[in-house]
Amino acid sequence: MFTGLSAFPLTPMNENAIDEAGFVRLIERLAAAGVDSMGVLGSTGNYAYLTRAERARMVRLAMAQAGDVPVIVGISALRTRDVLALAEDAEAAGASAVLLAPMSYQPLSEEEVFGLYEAVTARLSLPLCVYDNPGTTHFTFSDALHGRIAALPRVASIKIPGVPADPAAAGERVARLRGLIPPDVTIGVSGDAMAATGLNAGCEAWYSVIGGLFPETALAIAHAARAGKGDEALRLSQRLEPLWALFRRHGGSLRVVATAAELLGLTELPSLPLPLTTLQGRDRQALAAVLETLELA
Amino acid sequence: MFTGLSAFPLTPMNENAIDEAGFVRLIERLAAAGVDSMGVLGSTGNYAYLTRAERARMVRLAMAQAGDVPVIVGISALRTRDVLALAEDAEAAGASAVLLAPMSYQPLSEEEVFGLYEAVTARLSLPLCVYDNPGTTHFTFSDALHGRIAALPRVASIKIPGVPADPAAAGERVARLRGLIPPDVTIGVSGDAMAATGLNAGCEAWYSVIGGLFPETALAIAHAARAGKGDEALRLSQRLEPLWALFRRHGGSLRVVATAAELLGLTELPSLPLPLTTLQGRDRQALAAVLETLELA
Repeated sequence: MFTGLSAFPLTPMNENAIDEAGFVRLIERLAAAGVDSMGVLGSTGNYAYLTRAERARMVRLAMAQAGDVPVIVGISALRTRDVLALAEDAEAAGASAVLLAPMSYQPLSEEEVFGLYEAVTARLSLPLCVYDNPGTTHFTFSDALHGRIAALPRVASIKIPGVPADPAAAGERVARLRGLIPPDVTIGVSGDAMAATGLNAGCEAWYSVIGGLFPETALAIAHAARAGKGDEALRLSQRLEPLWALFRRHGGSLRVVATAAELLGLTELPSLPLPLTTLQGRDRQALAAVLETLELA
Repeated sequence: MFTGLSAFPLTPMNENAIDEAGFVRLIERLAAAGVDSMGVLGSTGNYAYLTRAERARMVRLAMAQAGDVPVIVGISALRTRDVLALAEDAEAAGASAVLLAPMSYQPLSEEEVFGLYEAVTARLSLPLCVYDNPGTTHFTFSDALHGRIAALPRVASIKIPGVPADPAAAGERVARLRGLIPPDVTIGVSGDAMAATGLNAGCEAWYSVIGGLFPETALAIAHAARAGKGDEALRLSQRLEPLWALFRRHGGSLRVVATAAELLGLTELPSLPLPLTTLQGRDRQALAAVLETLELA
Protein backbone atom coordinates (compact mmCIF):
# COMPACT_ATOMS: atom_id res chain seq x y z
CA MET A 1 0.00 0.00 0.00
CA PHE A 2 2.89 2.36 0.70
CA THR A 3 4.41 1.95 -2.75
CA GLY A 4 3.65 3.40 -6.16
CA LEU A 5 1.31 6.34 -6.63
CA SER A 6 -0.63 7.49 -3.60
CA ALA A 7 -3.05 10.18 -4.73
CA PHE A 8 -4.11 12.97 -2.38
CA PRO A 9 -7.45 14.52 -3.36
CA LEU A 10 -8.74 17.92 -2.36
CA THR A 11 -11.63 18.17 0.09
CA PRO A 12 -13.51 21.03 -1.59
CA MET A 13 -15.38 23.34 0.75
CA ASN A 14 -16.43 26.93 1.19
CA GLU A 15 -18.36 29.12 3.60
CA ASN A 16 -21.59 27.32 2.85
CA ALA A 17 -20.59 23.70 3.30
CA ILE A 18 -18.27 20.89 2.35
CA ASP A 19 -18.77 20.11 -1.35
CA GLU A 20 -19.49 16.43 -0.82
CA ALA A 21 -20.55 15.82 -4.41
CA GLY A 22 -17.29 17.33 -5.62
CA PHE A 23 -15.30 15.21 -3.17
CA VAL A 24 -17.05 12.06 -4.36
CA ARG A 25 -16.27 12.98 -8.00
CA LEU A 26 -12.59 13.31 -7.13
CA ILE A 27 -12.56 9.95 -5.32
CA GLU A 28 -14.31 8.26 -8.24
CA ARG A 29 -11.65 9.56 -10.66
CA LEU A 30 -8.93 8.03 -8.50
CA ALA A 31 -10.68 4.69 -8.21
CA ALA A 32 -11.31 4.60 -11.97
CA ALA A 33 -7.68 5.41 -12.75
CA GLY A 34 -6.45 2.63 -10.49
CA VAL A 35 -4.03 4.57 -8.32
CA ASP A 36 -2.07 2.40 -5.87
CA SER A 37 -3.62 4.13 -2.87
CA MET A 38 -5.34 7.36 -2.00
CA GLY A 39 -4.63 9.66 0.94
CA VAL A 40 -7.69 11.53 2.13
CA LEU A 41 -7.57 14.37 4.66
CA GLY A 42 -3.94 15.16 4.06
CA SER A 43 -2.89 18.79 3.67
CA THR A 44 -4.52 18.94 0.23
CA GLY A 45 -7.52 17.29 1.85
CA ASN A 46 -7.79 20.36 4.09
CA TYR A 47 -7.94 18.27 7.26
CA ALA A 48 -6.90 21.22 9.39
CA TYR A 49 -10.06 23.12 8.46
CA LEU A 50 -12.57 20.41 9.41
CA THR A 51 -14.15 19.21 12.63
CA ARG A 52 -13.89 15.64 13.85
CA ALA A 53 -17.44 14.89 12.70
CA GLU A 54 -16.80 16.39 9.27
CA ARG A 55 -13.63 14.35 8.92
CA ALA A 56 -15.41 11.14 9.90
CA ARG A 57 -18.05 11.87 7.26
CA MET A 58 -15.42 12.43 4.55
CA VAL A 59 -13.74 9.15 5.43
CA ARG A 60 -17.03 7.30 5.07
CA LEU A 61 -17.69 8.93 1.71
CA ALA A 62 -14.21 8.02 0.50
CA MET A 63 -14.53 4.42 1.67
CA ALA A 64 -17.83 4.10 -0.17
CA GLN A 65 -16.30 5.20 -3.50
CA ALA A 66 -12.75 3.90 -3.32
CA GLY A 67 -13.48 0.39 -4.56
CA ASP A 68 -10.35 -1.75 -4.27
CA VAL A 69 -8.03 1.19 -3.75
CA PRO A 70 -6.60 1.32 -0.21
CA VAL A 71 -7.54 4.49 1.65
CA ILE A 72 -4.97 6.19 3.88
CA VAL A 73 -6.63 8.62 6.28
CA GLY A 74 -5.00 11.72 7.74
CA ILE A 75 -5.42 11.85 11.53
CA SER A 76 -3.30 14.88 12.34
CA ALA A 77 -4.44 17.41 14.95
CA LEU A 78 -2.86 19.83 17.40
CA ARG A 79 -3.65 17.68 20.45
CA THR A 80 -2.60 14.09 21.01
CA ARG A 81 -6.04 13.47 22.50
CA ASP A 82 -7.69 14.49 19.24
CA VAL A 83 -5.28 12.44 17.15
CA LEU A 84 -6.22 9.35 19.17
CA ALA A 85 -9.91 10.04 18.62
CA LEU A 86 -9.36 10.51 14.88
CA ALA A 87 -7.41 7.26 14.74
CA GLU A 88 -10.36 5.47 16.33
CA ASP A 89 -12.70 7.03 13.78
CA ALA A 90 -10.47 5.93 10.89
CA GLU A 91 -10.29 2.39 12.24
CA ALA A 92 -14.03 2.26 12.77
CA ALA A 93 -14.62 3.41 9.18
CA GLY A 94 -12.43 0.62 7.80
CA ALA A 95 -9.51 2.72 6.62
CA SER A 96 -6.45 0.83 5.36
CA ALA A 97 -3.89 3.02 7.07
CA VAL A 98 -3.39 6.39 8.72
CA LEU A 99 -1.16 9.37 8.03
CA LEU A 100 0.12 11.51 10.90
CA ALA A 101 1.91 14.86 10.80
CA PRO A 102 3.21 16.69 13.89
CA MET A 103 0.80 19.58 13.38
CA SER A 104 1.78 22.44 15.66
CA TYR A 105 0.77 25.81 16.98
CA GLN A 106 3.40 26.11 19.69
CA PRO A 107 6.62 24.85 18.08
CA LEU A 108 7.27 21.25 19.16
CA SER A 109 10.47 19.69 20.48
CA GLU A 110 11.89 16.42 19.16
CA GLU A 111 10.89 14.66 22.37
CA GLU A 112 7.33 15.95 22.15
CA VAL A 113 7.02 14.73 18.56
CA PHE A 114 8.47 11.35 19.48
CA GLY A 115 6.01 11.19 22.38
CA LEU A 116 3.13 11.87 20.00
CA TYR A 117 4.06 9.01 17.66
CA GLU A 118 4.78 6.73 20.61
CA ALA A 119 1.37 7.39 22.16
CA VAL A 120 -0.51 6.94 18.89
CA THR A 121 1.26 3.82 17.65
CA ALA A 122 0.81 2.18 21.06
CA ARG A 123 -2.96 2.29 20.60
CA LEU A 124 -3.21 1.86 16.84
CA SER A 125 -4.13 -1.31 14.95
CA LEU A 126 -3.54 0.13 11.44
CA PRO A 127 -0.24 0.82 9.68
CA LEU A 128 0.93 4.42 9.94
CA CYS A 129 2.70 6.73 7.55
CA VAL A 130 4.82 9.47 9.14
CA TYR A 131 4.00 12.77 7.46
CA ASP A 132 6.99 15.09 7.29
CA ASN A 133 5.84 18.44 5.90
CA PRO A 134 7.65 21.37 7.50
CA GLY A 135 5.92 23.86 5.19
CA THR A 136 2.66 23.39 7.05
CA THR A 137 3.61 21.78 10.38
CA HIS A 138 6.66 23.99 10.99
CA PHE A 139 8.42 21.03 12.51
CA THR A 140 11.64 19.81 10.94
CA PHE A 141 12.46 16.14 11.50
CA SER A 142 16.08 15.21 12.00
CA ASP A 143 17.05 11.94 10.32
CA ALA A 144 17.84 10.59 13.78
CA LEU A 145 14.28 11.28 14.89
CA HIS A 146 12.94 9.60 11.74
CA GLY A 147 15.01 6.58 12.72
CA ARG A 148 13.59 6.47 16.24
CA ILE A 149 10.00 6.88 15.07
CA ALA A 150 10.35 4.38 12.21
CA ALA A 151 11.32 1.74 14.78
CA LEU A 152 7.96 2.11 16.56
CA PRO A 153 5.33 -0.56 15.89
CA ARG A 154 2.86 0.04 13.01
CA VAL A 155 5.12 2.60 11.30
CA ALA A 156 5.17 1.51 7.65
CA SER A 157 6.25 4.52 5.60
CA ILE A 158 7.69 8.02 5.75
CA LYS A 159 6.32 10.77 3.54
CA ILE A 160 9.28 13.08 3.01
CA PRO A 161 8.82 16.65 1.78
CA GLY A 162 11.10 16.36 -1.23
CA VAL A 163 14.58 15.56 -2.42
CA PRO A 164 17.38 17.72 -3.83
CA ALA A 165 17.05 18.45 -7.55
CA ASP A 166 20.49 16.99 -8.28
CA PRO A 167 20.07 13.22 -8.89
CA ALA A 168 23.25 12.27 -7.03
CA ALA A 169 22.31 14.42 -4.05
CA ALA A 170 18.79 12.97 -4.12
CA GLY A 171 20.23 9.46 -4.10
CA GLU A 172 22.43 10.29 -1.15
CA ARG A 173 19.52 11.86 0.74
CA VAL A 174 17.33 8.78 0.30
CA ALA A 175 20.19 6.38 1.08
CA ARG A 176 21.07 8.27 4.27
CA LEU A 177 17.48 8.02 5.54
CA ARG A 178 17.23 4.40 4.40
CA GLY A 179 20.25 3.55 6.51
CA LEU A 180 18.45 4.73 9.65
CA ILE A 181 15.07 2.98 9.29
CA PRO A 182 13.91 -0.65 9.28
CA PRO A 183 14.02 -2.30 5.82
CA ASP A 184 10.23 -2.76 5.65
CA VAL A 185 9.50 0.95 6.14
CA THR A 186 9.11 2.60 2.73
CA ILE A 187 10.10 6.13 1.80
CA GLY A 188 7.68 8.18 -0.25
CA VAL A 189 8.44 11.50 -1.86
CA SER A 190 6.10 14.46 -1.95
CA GLY A 191 6.57 17.87 -3.53
CA ASP A 192 5.28 16.91 -6.98
CA ALA A 193 7.93 18.79 -8.93
CA MET A 194 10.61 16.61 -7.32
CA ALA A 195 8.72 13.34 -7.50
CA ALA A 196 10.40 11.87 -10.58
CA THR A 197 13.81 12.66 -9.12
CA GLY A 198 12.73 11.11 -5.82
CA LEU A 199 11.40 7.94 -7.44
CA ASN A 200 14.57 7.64 -9.51
CA ALA A 201 16.57 8.08 -6.30
CA GLY A 202 14.90 5.05 -4.74
CA CYS A 203 11.74 6.30 -3.11
CA GLU A 204 9.16 3.48 -3.28
CA ALA A 205 6.14 5.79 -3.20
CA TRP A 206 4.99 9.15 -4.45
CA TYR A 207 2.50 10.91 -2.19
CA SER A 208 1.08 13.12 -4.88
CA VAL A 209 -1.08 16.23 -5.05
CA ILE A 210 -1.48 16.25 -8.82
CA GLY A 211 -2.22 12.55 -8.57
CA GLY A 212 -5.34 13.55 -6.64
CA LEU A 213 -6.65 15.53 -9.62
CA PHE A 214 -4.81 14.12 -12.66
CA PRO A 215 -4.21 10.49 -11.71
CA GLU A 216 -3.33 9.27 -15.23
CA THR A 217 -0.70 11.97 -15.62
CA ALA A 218 0.88 11.05 -12.30
CA LEU A 219 0.59 7.30 -12.95
CA ALA A 220 2.54 7.69 -16.19
CA ILE A 221 5.44 9.22 -14.28
CA ALA A 222 5.27 6.64 -11.48
CA HIS A 223 5.08 3.74 -13.94
CA ALA A 224 8.04 4.99 -15.97
CA ALA A 225 10.14 5.34 -12.84
CA ARG A 226 9.14 1.91 -11.55
CA ALA A 227 9.95 0.34 -14.93
CA GLY A 228 13.47 1.70 -14.63
CA LYS A 229 12.86 4.34 -17.29
CA GLY A 230 14.21 7.18 -15.19
CA ASP A 231 14.81 9.51 -18.11
CA GLU A 232 11.26 9.04 -19.33
CA ALA A 233 9.92 9.79 -15.83
CA LEU A 234 11.97 12.98 -15.74
CA ARG A 235 10.85 13.96 -19.23
CA LEU A 236 7.19 13.52 -18.28
CA SER A 237 7.73 15.55 -15.13
CA GLN A 238 9.64 18.30 -16.94
CA ARG A 239 6.78 18.58 -19.41
CA LEU A 240 4.68 19.72 -16.43
CA GLU A 241 7.12 22.51 -15.55
CA PRO A 242 4.51 25.25 -16.26
CA LEU A 243 2.40 23.67 -13.51
CA TRP A 244 5.35 23.42 -11.10
CA ALA A 245 6.06 27.10 -11.81
CA LEU A 246 2.53 27.98 -10.72
CA PHE A 247 2.96 25.89 -7.54
CA ARG A 248 6.08 27.91 -6.72
CA ARG A 249 4.40 31.19 -7.53
CA HIS A 250 1.28 30.58 -5.43
CA GLY A 251 2.87 29.38 -2.21
CA GLY A 252 2.45 25.66 -2.87
CA SER A 253 0.14 23.33 -4.70
CA LEU A 254 -3.16 23.75 -2.84
CA ARG A 255 -4.51 26.94 -4.41
CA VAL A 256 -3.47 25.78 -7.88
CA VAL A 257 -5.08 22.33 -7.73
CA ALA A 258 -8.21 23.72 -6.08
CA THR A 259 -8.55 26.28 -8.86
CA ALA A 260 -7.89 23.58 -11.44
CA ALA A 261 -10.66 21.46 -9.95
CA GLU A 262 -12.98 24.45 -10.26
CA LEU A 263 -11.92 25.07 -13.86
CA LEU A 264 -12.55 21.41 -14.71
CA GLY A 265 -16.07 21.75 -13.35
CA LEU A 266 -15.45 19.08 -10.71
CA THR A 267 -16.13 21.25 -7.68
CA GLU A 268 -18.26 24.17 -6.60
CA LEU A 269 -16.86 27.72 -6.58
CA PRO A 270 -15.04 28.57 -4.41
CA SER A 271 -13.49 25.27 -3.37
CA LEU A 272 -11.37 26.55 -0.47
CA PRO A 273 -12.43 27.88 2.94
CA LEU A 274 -11.71 31.52 3.79
CA PRO A 275 -9.24 33.01 4.49
CA LEU A 276 -7.78 30.71 1.80
CA THR A 277 -8.68 31.82 -1.71
CA THR A 278 -8.40 30.20 -5.12
CA LEU A 279 -6.80 32.01 -8.05
CA GLN A 280 -8.72 34.85 -9.65
CA GLY A 281 -8.31 37.15 -12.63
CA ARG A 282 -5.07 36.86 -14.58
CA ASP A 283 -3.70 34.13 -12.32
CA ARG A 284 -6.76 32.03 -13.03
CA GLN A 285 -6.48 32.65 -16.76
CA ALA A 286 -2.81 31.70 -16.68
CA LEU A 287 -3.67 28.40 -15.01
CA ALA A 288 -6.44 27.72 -17.52
CA ALA A 289 -3.95 28.30 -20.33
CA VAL A 290 -1.43 25.94 -18.74
CA LEU A 291 -4.06 23.21 -18.32
CA GLU A 292 -4.98 23.66 -22.00
CA THR A 293 -1.38 23.49 -23.19
CA LEU A 294 -0.67 20.40 -21.08
CA GLU A 295 -3.89 18.77 -22.28
CA LEU A 296 -5.18 18.56 -18.73
CA ALA A 297 -8.29 20.67 -19.32
CA MET B 1 -7.49 49.62 27.43
CA PHE B 2 -4.68 49.11 24.93
CA THR B 3 -2.08 50.88 27.06
CA GLY B 4 0.01 49.86 30.05
CA LEU B 5 0.33 46.26 31.19
CA SER B 6 -1.92 43.74 29.48
CA ALA B 7 -1.43 40.41 31.24
CA PHE B 8 -1.86 37.12 29.36
CA PRO B 9 -2.67 34.23 31.68
CA LEU B 10 -2.21 30.54 30.94
CA THR B 11 -5.25 28.35 30.38
CA PRO B 12 -4.04 25.27 32.28
CA MET B 13 -5.25 21.94 30.91
CA ASN B 14 -4.23 18.36 30.48
CA GLU B 15 -5.57 15.08 29.11
CA ASN B 16 -8.27 14.95 31.76
CA ALA B 17 -9.81 18.39 31.49
CA ILE B 18 -9.31 22.11 31.55
CA ASP B 19 -8.11 23.13 35.01
CA GLU B 20 -10.85 25.68 35.59
CA ALA B 21 -9.98 26.21 39.25
CA GLY B 22 -6.39 26.95 38.25
CA PHE B 23 -7.54 29.35 35.55
CA VAL B 24 -9.76 31.19 38.02
CA ARG B 25 -6.83 31.48 40.46
CA LEU B 26 -4.71 33.07 37.74
CA ILE B 27 -7.47 35.54 36.80
CA GLU B 28 -7.96 36.48 40.45
CA ARG B 29 -4.25 37.28 40.81
CA LEU B 30 -4.45 39.64 37.86
CA ALA B 31 -7.57 41.39 39.13
CA ALA B 32 -6.02 41.77 42.59
CA ALA B 33 -2.80 43.22 41.19
CA GLY B 34 -4.71 45.78 39.12
CA VAL B 35 -3.22 45.13 35.71
CA ASP B 36 -4.41 47.54 33.02
CA SER B 37 -6.08 44.76 31.04
CA MET B 38 -5.91 41.01 30.66
CA GLY B 39 -5.75 39.00 27.45
CA VAL B 40 -7.37 35.59 27.76
CA LEU B 41 -7.10 32.88 25.10
CA GLY B 42 -3.97 34.30 23.54
CA SER B 43 -1.12 31.95 22.67
CA THR B 44 -0.28 31.54 26.37
CA GLY B 45 -3.98 31.00 26.92
CA ASN B 46 -3.68 27.94 24.66
CA TYR B 47 -6.58 29.02 22.47
CA ALA B 48 -5.45 26.79 19.63
CA TYR B 49 -5.98 23.67 21.74
CA LEU B 50 -9.58 24.38 22.76
CA THR B 51 -12.98 23.95 21.12
CA ARG B 52 -15.39 26.82 20.59
CA ALA B 53 -17.51 25.70 23.55
CA GLU B 54 -14.45 25.41 25.80
CA ARG B 55 -13.32 28.87 24.76
CA ALA B 56 -16.75 30.37 25.46
CA ARG B 57 -16.68 28.80 28.92
CA MET B 58 -13.21 30.23 29.68
CA VAL B 59 -14.36 33.70 28.65
CA ARG B 60 -17.32 33.48 30.99
CA LEU B 61 -15.08 32.37 33.87
CA ALA B 62 -12.67 35.21 33.17
CA MET B 63 -15.46 37.81 33.01
CA ALA B 64 -16.82 36.59 36.34
CA GLN B 65 -13.46 37.10 38.10
CA ALA B 66 -11.93 40.06 36.29
CA GLY B 67 -13.67 42.77 38.32
CA ASP B 68 -12.93 46.18 36.79
CA VAL B 69 -10.08 44.93 34.62
CA PRO B 70 -10.96 44.99 30.90
CA VAL B 71 -10.83 41.54 29.29
CA ILE B 72 -9.41 41.15 25.78
CA VAL B 73 -10.45 37.83 24.24
CA GLY B 74 -8.46 35.91 21.64
CA ILE B 75 -10.70 34.93 18.69
CA SER B 76 -8.09 33.43 16.36
CA ALA B 77 -8.85 30.28 14.37
CA LEU B 78 -7.81 28.73 11.07
CA ARG B 79 -11.10 29.55 9.34
CA THR B 80 -12.67 32.98 8.93
CA ARG B 81 -16.04 31.35 9.63
CA ASP B 82 -14.83 30.18 13.04
CA VAL B 83 -13.25 33.54 13.85
CA LEU B 84 -16.61 35.22 13.21
CA ALA B 85 -18.36 32.75 15.50
CA LEU B 86 -15.76 33.30 18.23
CA ALA B 87 -16.18 37.06 17.88
CA GLU B 88 -19.92 36.66 18.44
CA ASP B 89 -19.25 34.54 21.52
CA ALA B 90 -16.86 37.16 22.93
CA GLU B 91 -19.37 39.94 22.33
CA ALA B 92 -22.16 37.91 23.90
CA ALA B 93 -20.02 37.28 26.99
CA GLY B 94 -19.38 41.00 27.47
CA ALA B 95 -15.71 41.08 26.54
CA SER B 96 -14.08 44.50 26.29
CA ALA B 97 -12.13 43.78 23.12
CA VAL B 98 -10.84 40.99 20.89
CA LEU B 99 -7.40 39.88 19.76
CA LEU B 100 -6.92 38.32 16.34
CA ALA B 101 -3.89 36.55 14.88
CA PRO B 102 -3.69 35.21 11.32
CA MET B 103 -3.44 31.62 12.52
CA SER B 104 -2.44 29.40 9.61
CA TYR B 105 -1.98 25.84 8.46
CA GLN B 106 -1.52 26.56 4.77
CA PRO B 107 0.74 29.62 4.61
CA LEU B 108 -1.35 32.75 3.99
CA SER B 109 -0.80 35.53 1.48
CA GLU B 110 -0.95 39.23 2.39
CA GLU B 111 -4.27 39.59 0.56
CA GLU B 112 -5.77 36.61 2.40
CA VAL B 113 -4.74 38.08 5.76
CA PHE B 114 -6.11 41.49 4.82
CA GLY B 115 -9.33 39.78 3.74
CA LEU B 116 -9.58 38.07 7.14
CA TYR B 117 -9.29 41.35 9.07
CA GLU B 118 -11.61 43.11 6.65
CA ALA B 119 -14.31 40.43 7.04
CA VAL B 120 -14.04 40.34 10.83
CA THR B 121 -13.92 44.09 11.47
CA ALA B 122 -16.91 44.60 9.15
CA ARG B 123 -19.08 42.55 11.51
CA LEU B 124 -17.48 43.42 14.83
CA SER B 125 -18.80 45.85 17.44
CA LEU B 126 -15.77 45.60 19.80
CA PRO B 127 -12.32 47.13 19.40
CA LEU B 128 -9.74 44.75 17.94
CA CYS B 129 -6.05 44.23 18.58
CA VAL B 130 -4.03 42.84 15.67
CA TYR B 131 -1.89 39.99 16.93
CA ASP B 132 1.42 39.73 15.07
CA ASN B 133 3.22 36.60 16.27
CA PRO B 134 5.14 34.90 13.45
CA GLY B 135 6.59 32.31 15.86
CA THR B 136 3.21 30.61 16.13
CA THR B 137 1.20 31.86 13.14
CA HIS B 138 4.07 31.58 10.64
CA PHE B 139 2.80 34.71 8.94
CA THR B 140 5.06 37.74 8.77
CA PHE B 141 3.32 41.10 8.49
CA SER B 142 4.91 43.75 6.35
CA ASP B 143 4.66 47.25 7.78
CA ALA B 144 2.61 48.20 4.72
CA LEU B 145 0.07 45.49 5.58
CA HIS B 146 -0.05 46.70 9.18
CA GLY B 147 -0.84 50.13 7.80
CA ARG B 148 -3.70 48.84 5.65
CA ILE B 149 -5.20 46.76 8.46
CA ALA B 150 -4.81 49.50 11.08
CA ALA B 151 -6.98 51.75 8.89
CA LEU B 152 -9.90 49.32 9.12
CA PRO B 153 -12.73 50.21 11.54
CA ARG B 154 -12.47 48.85 15.11
CA VAL B 155 -8.71 48.29 14.91
CA ALA B 156 -7.35 49.83 18.10
CA SER B 157 -3.92 48.30 18.71
CA ILE B 158 -1.15 46.19 17.21
CA LYS B 159 0.62 43.58 19.30
CA ILE B 160 4.08 43.37 17.77
CA PRO B 161 6.38 40.40 18.41
CA GLY B 162 9.30 42.41 19.77
CA VAL B 163 11.76 45.15 19.05
CA PRO B 164 15.51 45.15 18.35
CA ALA B 165 17.67 45.01 21.49
CA ASP B 166 19.49 48.22 20.55
CA PRO B 167 17.49 51.20 21.93
CA ALA B 168 18.06 53.38 18.87
CA ALA B 169 17.04 50.58 16.50
CA ALA B 170 14.00 49.88 18.68
CA GLY B 171 13.01 53.54 18.53
CA GLU B 172 13.36 53.54 14.75
CA ARG B 173 11.29 50.35 14.45
CA VAL B 174 8.42 51.76 16.51
CA ALA B 175 8.58 55.14 14.75
CA ARG B 176 8.48 53.51 11.32
CA LEU B 177 5.33 51.55 12.20
CA ARG B 178 3.80 54.58 13.91
CA GLY B 179 4.19 56.55 10.72
CA LEU B 180 2.01 54.05 8.85
CA ILE B 181 -0.95 53.71 11.25
CA PRO B 182 -3.67 56.07 12.49
CA PRO B 183 -2.67 58.10 15.59
CA ASP B 184 -5.30 56.46 17.81
CA VAL B 185 -4.03 52.92 17.17
CA THR B 186 -1.57 51.95 19.91
CA ILE B 187 1.48 49.74 19.54
CA GLY B 188 2.11 47.10 22.18
CA VAL B 189 5.27 45.06 22.55
CA SER B 190 5.39 41.38 23.35
CA GLY B 191 8.38 39.12 23.81
CA ASP B 192 8.84 39.79 27.53
CA ALA B 193 12.63 40.03 27.42
CA MET B 194 12.35 43.00 25.04
CA ALA B 195 9.43 44.69 26.75
CA ALA B 196 11.35 47.35 28.69
CA THR B 197 13.24 48.31 25.52
CA GLY B 198 9.95 48.41 23.62
CA LEU B 199 8.21 50.58 26.22
CA ASN B 200 11.21 52.92 26.32
CA ALA B 201 11.05 53.07 22.52
CA GLY B 202 7.49 54.39 22.63
CA CYS B 203 5.23 51.34 22.73
CA GLU B 204 2.13 52.30 24.73
CA ALA B 205 1.36 48.74 25.86
CA TRP B 206 3.11 45.56 26.94
CA TYR B 207 1.24 42.38 26.05
CA SER B 208 2.93 40.26 28.67
CA VAL B 209 3.30 36.56 29.40
CA ILE B 210 5.05 36.99 32.76
CA GLY B 211 2.41 39.58 33.58
CA GLY B 212 -0.09 36.72 33.45
CA LEU B 213 1.70 34.90 36.27
CA PHE B 214 3.74 37.58 38.07
CA PRO B 215 1.67 40.73 37.61
CA GLU B 216 3.45 42.83 40.26
CA THR B 217 6.83 42.10 38.73
CA ALA B 218 5.61 43.14 35.30
CA LEU B 219 3.73 46.18 36.64
CA ALA B 220 6.93 47.49 38.24
CA ILE B 221 8.63 47.48 34.84
CA ALA B 222 5.65 49.01 33.06
CA HIS B 223 5.24 51.72 35.71
CA ALA B 224 8.93 52.66 35.60
CA ALA B 225 8.82 52.97 31.82
CA ARG B 226 5.63 55.02 31.88
CA ALA B 227 7.10 57.35 34.54
CA GLY B 228 9.97 58.09 32.19
CA LYS B 229 12.43 56.05 34.26
CA GLY B 230 13.73 54.09 31.32
CA ASP B 231 16.94 53.00 33.02
CA GLU B 232 15.00 51.66 35.99
CA ALA B 233 12.69 49.71 33.66
CA LEU B 234 15.71 48.20 31.93
CA ARG B 235 17.37 47.36 35.26
CA LEU B 236 14.23 45.58 36.50
CA SER B 237 14.02 43.65 33.23
CA GLN B 238 17.72 42.74 33.24
CA ARG B 239 17.31 41.39 36.77
CA LEU B 240 14.98 38.79 35.19
CA GLU B 241 17.63 37.68 32.69
CA PRO B 242 17.79 34.14 34.18
CA LEU B 243 14.11 33.79 33.28
CA TRP B 244 14.61 35.18 29.77
CA ALA B 245 17.44 32.68 29.33
CA LEU B 246 15.04 29.85 30.16
CA PHE B 247 12.50 31.24 27.64
CA ARG B 248 15.20 31.14 24.95
CA ARG B 249 16.30 27.67 25.97
CA HIS B 250 12.84 26.12 25.97
CA GLY B 251 11.51 27.41 22.68
CA GLY B 252 9.56 30.35 24.08
CA SER B 253 7.76 31.32 27.23
CA LEU B 254 4.86 28.86 27.35
CA ARG B 255 6.54 25.77 28.83
CA VAL B 256 8.43 27.90 31.36
CA VAL B 257 5.42 29.84 32.68
CA ALA B 258 3.26 26.71 32.72
CA THR B 259 5.90 24.90 34.77
CA ALA B 260 6.24 27.93 37.04
CA ALA B 261 2.47 27.91 37.62
CA GLU B 262 2.75 24.24 38.60
CA LEU B 263 5.69 24.94 40.93
CA LEU B 264 3.75 27.74 42.61
CA GLY B 265 0.90 25.32 43.27
CA LEU B 266 -1.52 27.39 41.22
CA THR B 267 -2.41 24.71 38.68
CA GLU B 268 -2.78 20.98 38.39
CA LEU B 269 0.03 18.82 37.02
CA PRO B 270 0.55 18.73 34.11
CA SER B 271 -0.77 22.11 33.00
CA LEU B 272 -0.25 21.69 29.24
CA PRO B 273 -2.03 19.42 26.74
CA LEU B 274 -0.04 16.68 25.02
CA PRO B 275 2.02 16.69 22.88
CA LEU B 276 3.16 19.83 24.74
CA THR B 277 5.03 19.05 27.93
CA THR B 278 6.13 21.11 30.91
CA LEU B 279 9.71 21.02 32.17
CA GLN B 280 10.85 17.92 34.01
CA GLY B 281 13.97 16.75 35.86
CA ARG B 282 16.94 19.10 35.83
CA ASP B 283 15.15 21.70 33.70
CA ARG B 284 12.40 21.88 36.27
CA GLN B 285 14.89 22.17 39.12
CA ALA B 286 16.71 24.93 37.27
CA LEU B 287 13.48 26.88 36.91
CA ALA B 288 12.64 26.37 40.59
CA ALA B 289 16.07 27.72 41.51
CA VAL B 290 15.59 30.76 39.26
CA LEU B 291 12.18 31.50 40.79
CA GLU B 292 13.75 31.29 44.25
CA THR B 293 16.65 33.57 43.35
CA LEU B 294 14.32 36.13 41.78
CA GLU B 295 11.97 35.94 44.77
CA LEU B 296 9.12 34.80 42.52
CA ALA B 297 8.55 31.47 44.32
